[in-house]
Amino acid sequence: MKTDPGRFFEDFRIGDTIRHATPRTLTVGDTALYTALYGSRFAVQSADAFAGAVGYPRSPVDDLLVFHVVFGKSVPDISLNAVANLGYADGRFLAPVYPGDTLTAVSEVIGLKENSNRQTGVVHVRTRGFDQHGTPVLEYCRWVMVRKLAERARPHREEVPSLPDAVQPASLGLACPQIDGSAWSDALSGSPHRFGDYRAGERIDHVDGMTVEEAEHQLATRLYQNTAKVHFDGHAAAGTRFGRRLIYGGHVISLARALSFNGLANAFHIAAINGGRHVAPLFAGDTVYAWSEILETADLPGRKDVGALRIRTIATKNQPCADFPGRVEGGYHPAVILDFDYWALIPR
Amino acid sequence: MKTDPGRFFEDFRIGDTIRHATPRTLTVGDTALYTALYGSRFAVQSADAFAGAVGYPRSPVDDLLVFHVVFGKSVPDISLNAVANLGYADGRFLAPVYPGDTLTAVSEVIGLKENSNRQTGVVHVRTRGFDQHGTPVLEYCRWVMVRKLAERARPHREEVPSLPDAVQPASLGLACPQIDGSAWSDALSGSPHRFGDYRAGERIDHVDGMTVEEAEHQLATRLYQNTAKVHFDGHAAAGTRFGRRLIYGGHVISLARALSFNGLANAFHIAAINGGRHVAPLFAGDTVYAWSEILETADLPGRKDVGALRIRTIATKNQPCADFPGRVEGGYHPAVILDFDYWALIPR
Amino acid sequence: MKTDPGRFFEDFRIGDTIRHATPRTLTVGDTALYTALYGSRFAVQSADAFAGAVGYPRSPVDDLLVFHVVFGKSVPDISLNAVANLGYADGRFLAPVYPGDTLTAVSEVIGLKENSNRQTGVVHVRTRGFDQHGTPVLEYCRWVMVRKLAERARPHREEVPSLPDAVQPASLGLACPQIDGSAWSDALSGSPHRFGDYRAGERIDHVDGMTVEEAEHQLATRLYQNTAKVHFDGHAAAGTRFGRRLIYGGHVISLARALSFNGLANAFHIAAINGGRHVAPLFAGDTVYAWSEILETADLPGRKDVGALRIRTIATKNQPCADFPGRVEGGYHPAVILDFDYWALIPR
Repeated sequence: MKTDPGRFFEDFRIGDTIRHATPRTLTVGDTALYTALYGSRFAVQSADAFAGAVGYPRSPVDDLLVFHVVFGKSVPDISLNAVANLGYADGRFLAPVYPGDTLTAVSEVIGLKENSNRQTGVVHVRTRGFDQHGTPVLEYCRWVMVRKLAERARPHREEVPSLPDAVQPASLGLACPQIDGSAWSDALSGSPHRFGDYRAGERIDHVDGMTVEEAEHQLATRLYQNTAKVHFDGHAAAGTRFGRRLIYGGHVISLARALSFNGLANAFHIAAINGGRHVAPLFAGDTVYAWSEILETADLPGRKDVGALRIRTIATKNQPCADFPGRVEGGYHPAVILDFDYWALIPR
Repeated sequence: MKTDPGRFFEDFRIGDTIRHATPRTLTVGDTALYTALYGSRFAVQSADAFAGAVGYPRSPVDDLLVFHVVFGKSVPDISLNAVANLGYADGRFLAPVYPGDTLTAVSEVIGLKENSNRQTGVVHVRTRGFDQHGTPVLEYCRWVMVRKLAERARPHREEVPSLPDAVQPASLGLACPQIDGSAWSDALSGSPHRFGDYRAGERIDHVDGMTVEEAEHQLATRLYQNTAKVHFDGHAAAGTRFGRRLIYGGHVISLARALSFNGLANAFHIAAINGGRHVAPLFAGDTVYAWSEILETADLPGRKDVGALRIRTIATKNQPCADFPGRVEGGYHPAVILDFDYWALIPR
Repeated sequence: MKTDPGRFFEDFRIGDTIRHATPRTLTVGDTALYTALYGSRFAVQSADAFAGAVGYPRSPVDDLLVFHVVFGKSVPDISLNAVANLGYADGRFLAPVYPGDTLTAVSEVIGLKENSNRQTGVVHVRTRGFDQHGTPVLEYCRWVMVRKLAERARPHREEVPSLPDAVQPASLGLACPQIDGSAWSDALSGSPHRFGDYRAGERIDHVDGMTVEEAEHQLATRLYQNTAKVHFDGHAAAGTRFGRRLIYGGHVISLARALSFNGLANAFHIAAINGGRHVAPLFAGDTVYAWSEILETADLPGRKDVGALRIRTIATKNQPCADFPGRVEGGYHPAVILDFDYWALIPR
């Protein structure tokens, strides 16, 4: 058969290394589309002149655009038959990506666990993205629930990997050059609040809401060459329990990050993804809001230019976040769709 | 508070100078999106080879894209709490912008007038856009009705600025290099009609209609990093008197300008904006049509390459313009949404 | 009159050569949008690094993007008053197009035939696209049914051109440099199947479905500067027999081609278009599926790097293609919307 049916749970073996197809050159065309899709305003990524002044050769590609493209490469091999994308951990941005760079991706199977219903199992992978020089630019783990083709099939070996709750501050910052804080204009960046102005426990309502259209998430998800059919096939979706297309979870992450500018304007670089959970699905027509809690603040060993904020961003749908809807007894407030834990760098 | 609530009427003082956040590098990614959003066909902006032949180093960025980006920068500081964008005047394009240039913007408060209801007031600003070398590329005035936070608050000093009805021809053309009319191909530009073929009083129905979708105006408005929530938050909009998202008025200007190609194909450069009024709101699903009247024709002192047409473009919704709907006793024909008065340059 | 009413059937003469307006520089902005619109994943067009390894100086612009832009230029002159786009033949890609190249187009009228109803006639044109050096990049024939303005008008001379059923293999490949098959990574391209793995008569269901939104096809069609009003004017469309906007047929071709990656991943270059027929219209909200049959396999004289597959791709709406819906007695399966016959090159 020439078409690719994707791997089923029993097709994975721990230790498998899968080189993903379709290398992708990112360009200023992609970065313009990213701006049009999310309205992101972080100055380093928005303006070559600003990036150049503070220490980059030019504006780097938005960290999440890099993430989505690397993620997209892995979909045909890892999650074409996935029921659900369960979580992320240990994500680290390892080198900046600039327009003109070509990304490729490789995944390693690091865990397998069949579900008790014998219909599905959880596959854990570590995915790495590389540029055209072979330099690793991103690495992260994710786990997905994947269908079995044959109920009787058994996994070759089961094991659930142990992954860190959070990336250690000492390993942050590889994708961030030395930042010249004296050249950093707070007027241009949009906020006077720097590292020292944030405190663990602080909560920020990002205020604004963004309604999502079918055309928007489809454009985004195709831009990432993510082929998961649940995002595109409205005809097939009509027969599912949701009755409509599901929006790629990464689209929500990017929306929440763009909304978070209002309150975190100087937190310019996502250095690591500690964890992420898509609590509920988002559909076209829904409006996304977000709020964040500063979980932790950290110094970066050997660096005096930037500090790190560990940020937990909660996104909701159709519910503004003035009262910080989040975890409740037994789960989450019903409006919550995303619980995302990451490290961002911010100038001192 | 780390989030920005925006300025209220009483927060402005005449003479305030506000440097806006988020510098923005415009690229060929932005110009491609601009084409996809409006279908603009003016040859100078569409083709480096055409632009190069007639006197530009390469295709400049569309004038209205420059306008929208500069305007967008001013929104968080000027009009986040605006009730309505009332008008524009004295807009002049001062230097061409090319892909790769980074724009910043600064506004000066030039007028304040409280409304008699004490709930709102009108703020007049002069906004200037600059490139990365500090060269001014655009300057225009606008006035917006802004909410007061406290009814009892009083403006520091009230004054309504005197602004010209139209920009003087002598100050047009700074953003346009010397054009080599002999290299200007009418076959390629799409029309044989040059400066001498237009007469004051002439009316042109631009014929075509363009229906607008939610995804389109959202993509556009985010591309401009314009953060006015009325354009994006469908959940909140459901509770307003309109019941839905409002489309950014600049989107209508760009649609009308693109439609005007059919009849004004050689009027390649917007040199000045004399005035503009958003007569009624546009909503997704509406179809925009446009017609223009040549108000005036003018020589540019010292230039024999191009002349200037003063054009008044009226845009309507859901009503073709064969019978030129416009001003009527007591206001406008109910289909009119935009009344826009500008100077365009056109080869002789 | 300054607006262009377009040509009617009686305005064409056999032998007329029409130079089309609006030259267009294609950039990485356009290629990014093309990816976002269709999710295409062919490695040569997706990654400069892959293209560079196998023999291109960098990623060429997708063949169909070149086709759409050249086609778009011809619309105002050829098909503004068209009732239907009837077919294509003898299409050949003659030189690669790279970001930065500027395209222009010229059409020659090669056939005319009035319909018996005297209301319309069929116009046959050969359209050629050129880059900024005057190098031809694409040539194809199409025929369209065009309205007459005056029923009594008669065509100057009638003649129906004789066009080949298919382009000869000997004339394929001009737009494809020598490909280094040893540098072609099947892991990166997404398939191990090369020229020798396909057989005439083989059928491939491309499996995936893609739902189309109004905003998407409008963005695409405007990107191509295609001005046919049936795609954009929802207000006027409400009064037609379809009651809504028609989607540009080329949008369907691009969707089908992108879907065909799943089964034809190494068939990286469209070398020729043998024929194409838009069997039924597509509307927003419909989901497109596709399947292909290998009609023929052919060597290219003098080339050992690549072979040619003659592929017939059928696209359907709202009907998956597992049972290969196609021609039936008296016409087509009711779900079929496109029957497209082309030559693609694939490494040996």
